[in-house]
Parts: sequence; structure tokens; C-alpha cells
Amino acid sequence: MIKKYKDIIVVNGEHNIDEESNNSLFICVISHTETSEIPGITAAGANKDLIKYTPVADAEFLYYGKCNCINGIPATPDGKPTPAIITKTMLNIGNIPFIVVDAGVKVKPDIPMVSFDLKSGYNISKGIAMESKEVEKAYRYGLIIGKQLSKSNDLIILGESIPGGTTTALGVMLSLGVDAENKISSSMSKNPHNLKNTIVRQSMKDNNITFGSLKDKPFDAISLLGDPMIPSVTGIAQGAIEYGGKVMLAGGTQMCAILSILKSLNVKTNNISIGTTKYILNDQTADFKNLVLSIDNNVGIFVVDLHLIESTKQGLKAFANGFVKEGVGAGGVSIATMIKQKGKINGKILLKYIEREYEKNIEEKLYIKPN
Amino acid sequence: MIKKYKDIIVVNGEHNIDEESNNSLFICVISHTETSEIPGITAAGANKDLIKYTPVADAEFLYYGKCNCINGIPATPDGKPTPAIITKTMLNIGNIPFIVVDAGVKVKPDIPMVSFDLKSGYNISKGIAMESKEVEKAYRYGLIIGKQLSKSNDLIILGESIPGGTTTALGVMLSLGVDAENKISSSMSKNPHNLKNTIVRQSMKDNNITFGSLKDKPFDAISLLGDPMIPSVTGIAQGAIEYGGKVMLAGGTQMCAILSILKSLNVKTNNISIGTTKYILNDQTADFKNLVLSIDNNVGIFVVDLHLIESTKQGLKAFANGFVKEGVGAGGVSIATMIKQKGKINGKILLKYIEREYEKNIEEKLYIKPN
Repeated sequence: MIKKYKDIIVVNGEHNIDEESNNSLFICVISHTETSEIPGITAAGANKDLIKYTPVADAEFLYYGKCNCINGIPATPDGKPTPAIITKTMLNIGNIPFIVVDAGVKVKPDIPMVSFDLKSGYNISKGIAMESKEVEKAYRYGLIIGKQLSKSNDLIILGESIPGGTTTALGVMLSLGVDAENKISSSMSKNPHNLKNTIVRQSMKDNNITFGSLKDKPFDAISLLGDPMIPSVTGIAQGAIEYGGKVMLAGGTQMCAILSILKSLNVKTNNISIGTTKYILNDQTADFKNLVLSIDNNVGIFVVDLHLIESTKQGLKAFANGFVKEGVGAGGVSIATMIKQKGKINGKILLKYIEREYEKNIEEKLYIKPN
Repeated sequence: MIKKYKDIIVVNGEHNIDEESNNSLFICVISHTETSEIPGITAAGANKDLIKYTPVADAEFLYYGKCNCINGIPATPDGKPTPAIITKTMLNIGNIPFIVVDAGVKVKPDIPMVSFDLKSGYNISKGIAMESKEVEKAYRYGLIIGKQLSKSNDLIILGESIPGGTTTALGVMLSLGVDAENKISSSMSKNPHNLKNTIVRQSMKDNNITFGSLKDKPFDAISLLGDPMIPSVTGIAQGAIEYGGKVMLAGGTQMCAILSILKSLNVKTNNISIGTTKYILNDQTADFKNLVLSIDNNVGIFVVDLHLIESTKQGLKAFANGFVKEGVGAGGVSIATMIKQKGKINGKILLKYIEREYEKNIEEKLYIKPN
């Protein structure tokens, strides 16, 4: 059972992550879909042409604290940074190793990556999400990597960066019979539920799917409505669990889709937890807790309070006010870091480190510096 | 210091690999060069068109015990198998995790790989070996991966599969001032020293290089005479060592080239060892021991006796009679497995496991079964 740590809220479950789990590995799965290019669906990237650079910029930021692929910084013009800033800070503090898995990005980052040799996803408004054989390959490669990496890492933390990912997650969950409508989060403060519901409902109709009709066909659900990140992360998680490892799904809505698939595949969830930020848990435009519990009321739900509301940086404070909130495994990696440090570091201390990272790699390089 | 284990011969050095090193990881770096297509240079692949499949088949064999990329088995028609059969057997017995790094293969195996995003090498008879920026990228990506993977693995075992690799290794060593001429091994029983010497000498002449003239320019040596495996493995090794990890270079001649580069880069070698098979050490057509010692007389040299001379399988027995001998990290992985098993398993027992693997995945599928 997880011990009581300041600033880690145990929302549900008992999970055997504790100080023993000090050999964790973070895997960030990056991908792209044409679904993300539907106007209004994502805050990632100021326009359609920039969206495909978001996962690439996140991955490069984790390694270098800057982007090589584009001339700029991964932040909005008014200084709201990528959540990768939290992830990077925590990986450094916790000395947690990480690798990036390329599950179909459109632009390649300048880093070594585990390639799953996948095409980007299509636009679910115009046809299928990805070919069945691509789903199968992503899952199969995931199983291999999950097993291999579990041999020397007792906790695999899985994060993602895929723009528009909550919409495809919604599609998968509805097809599997998870009532996720209006419960999913958004990287925007105004959650565009109507747009997402409309896209997904229309796509389900086009494919002759009704709520729950693919309950026992999870790979069909991914192929018709999902994205390449979903089978990749599912495979890695299952490979790790079957080897005897532990898995933390680091994220919000999209990790709920993974959990739905794992349940559909009858994977045991007693060594799986979801780790996320308080900003996802408290998102009034969504219903994270009940969404998770409706999928599996046994799974551990851990939530970190990073005290961003108290930040002197407006860009970081925005996370507590409905912007960004989570992503690139930020919440889960924070939790793993705090556990690895045996609770010596709390959310307030972590905030100071995040702010320092922000000053160095974001604020310094903003053209319009926030006051 | 390594303890005394039956069938592990400590040829040189003291190395702190012992029972504590039970969290090892094997990394197999696969690549291709057009140099390998020079007639007579390699035994890998029956003809020019098949050569490029050799590293691919090796990598797939490690995961699946068979090849997906070609219809056939990785063995000569008379049953001499790829050394990957030893590696695969040992990884299973030792439960050692492994990953494959793609450092410029020409055909992609059907496995997840860490991609270093490199082009295949050129033909050193016709111009440079690879572009400088490719050398730099391979090395830089290697440093990243070596560092990350050392965080949760205390011993990184590095192997390779790149046809024609001893010729490019020779070129690099001569440029660095290592007198490797006529000391390098071959996968063939008749070691084609003359052919290799002629190719390398001509290439050095074409590039205005003399023996040792690139002593302080190791990256130039790789760019002009090497191959993409060399800077990749060098980077991984250095990244691991700088993080505080231990490295075993698993192989013969080609790992000598890596050691030469590491020495030229002033990387400390006290946590580096070379692990290989007895068939390399005893190769009368080469001079492995003196070659290593001429590069660094401090480095650990460990040699495994797998008793293949006693095998009932002619294909395996051939390893002891000058064919194949080593490759795909076979010797180093065997040593790591024996150490991990605290010496409970000796070479004779391992031979039985290798023979079983041979029966299942090679002999069964040979069209002409050897008697």
C-alpha cells in the first residue's frame, strides 16, 4: 500500500508502490493523428501546421530543455508551457531514466527513440482511425518492449504526447461501453465537449457502432476510432504486467482509454495505477474520478498537488486554472519522484524546482515576457 | 575482481563484475555498409543480395527464434548457424533483457528497435565510410541511450551484427595507430587478410591517411574508414561509463576498434571489459589478445569456453574449427549469464541448452539435415 505522503492524494485503491519501487522507468509514447487537425479540437499548436510539432517538441524538451525541430519554445505566446516542463524537472530530481517511443509521429524529433514503425493516425471524421494491422503491430511491439524493460525496472510509468488524444480516447471508450461523454478533460479551459461528442458520434454512426457494441472487440474500437498511441501503451502495459512488473498510467482521459482496453483484454489491474495531477481530478468540466471508477473500481488512483496555484509564474499558475493541466506523464512522474525520495520532497518544494526550470528554459526565451 | 568460474578464462585485468552485477542489459547494435558487399569480404549471407538481411535475421532470431524478413533460417546450407543462437539461449537462461539499436540497417526487421536514424555506411573502396554529421549523431544518440539505460542497469553488454565489420574495424584501428594488420579475426575459416589489408591500405591512401595519422581525430577515422555501428556503440559505452555504469564489449575485432576509439577519447577503461569466446582467443589466423593489450593493457579480457568442440551438432562444432566463432554478443552474454547464475552453470551445461535451441530452431528447419 502506498504510504501517506504530503501532496499525494490517494483517491482510490491500494497499490504496492512504495519506497521499494525505486527502479522506475518513464516511457513517453508520442504520436500524431489527422483527427487532431480538426479545427478547435486541441490547444496543442497554435495552428494546424504546428500541431504535428507538439509531440516532437515535448520529446526534445525532455532531453534538451529546448526544441531542435522548431525555432521556438514549447509554450503559448503568453507563457503557458508544455506540461513536459514538469516531467523534465521531476525526471531530473528523481534521476528516473526515460525513453521515448515513436508511435507514428509526423515529424521526427532529434533524439534516439524506440520506433514502433507506425503510420500516423487518420481523421476519424473521414474514415477509420488506423489500419487493423497497424493496431496489431503497435500492440505486439508494445508487449515486447514492456516485457524486456520490466526485467530491470520494477515500475513502468507510461505517459503520452499526442494532440487531439482525448477525442480518440472518447471514441474508444464509448465503443467499449464506457460512458465517457462529457466526462473527459481538455487541454483548453473551455472544454469543447460538443465538438468532440459530435465528431465521435458521427464517426460511430458511419462505422455502424453503437455504445458498447465493440465491448469484446477492443482492437476494432482502436482501429475505427482510436489512435496509434493507444495500442502501443496498452501493449507496453500488458507486457510489463504479464512479466510481473508494476505499471503507472500517467495521465487523465487518455489513460482511461488504455485502462478500458486492458479491462476488455482481461488484464489484471491490481498492479496498475493511474497517476495524475490535481488539476485533472478537480476539472469541473470533466469527471475524472467517476470515469476511472466506472471502468475499474479496483485500480489505484493517485493524484499529486504541485501547488501551481501558488506559483509566481502566470504560465504555471494557469495549469491550476484549467489550462493544460496534465500531459507527457507530468502527474505520474511527479508521484514516482516523490515516492522515490521517500516523501522528503513535497509539492511545494517541487514547485520551486519547476519554477526554476521555467525561468531557465521558458521565461528567458519568451518574446513577450509575462510580468 | 571477477571470481573464478569454471569455463570463464580471465585473460587480463581485474574487473568488478561479480554476483552484484545481476542487473545487466544486452544492447545489440545492427547496421549495414556497402563495404560488406565487396566480394569475398564476409561469410554473412550467401551472396551480395542476402548480406543486408544478416543483421535483420539476427535481430529477429533473438526475439522470435526465427526470421520474419526472409523465408529461411539464419544458417549456412550445411547447418552452421548464426552466433545469435548462442546469444538467444543465454538471454533466456540468464533472463537478461535486451534491446536492438538500428544504426543504419538497409532492411528493417519486424521488431521494435531504438532508431539512431542513420544511413547505412558506404563502400570505403569508393570514398568515405559515412558522413561526419552521421558519425556525430550516432555518437550523440549513443551517449543519451547509454546514460539513460545505465540508470537502471549496472552492466551494459554491447554486441553487434554488421557484415564486413572487421574490415572497417581494421581501417579505424590503423588510422588510430593500432597495429591490427593480420591480427583481426574473420567469420570465415580462411581469414582473407590480404583482401582486407588491400582494401584498407588503398582507402587510407585515397584519403591521405597514414598509420596513426588520425590518432587524435577518432571521428575522422570513423567517417573515412569505419561504419555506423562504431560511433553508436562508442557513444553508448561512454554514456554508460560516464554515468557510473559498467560496460562489457561483447565481441572480438570490432570491439577492439571501439576500445581504440574510447582510448582516443580519453574515456577511462577501468569499468570496461571485453567478453568473447574461446574461438576468438584461440584463432590462429589472428592475434586477439595482443591486439587488445596493444590498445589498453588495463582492460579486462574475459573469454568463455562453451565446449562447442564437444558438440554432437556439426554446425556448432564448426565454431571451434574456425567458422563464425563469435558475433551478436554471443561470448559476452554467455559470460554475463554465467556470472548472474553465480557459476552454477558451466560451459558444458550451456552447450546442452544451445544444442536444444539448435535442434528446435535450426536443425528442424534445415532442408538438408546434417548427420
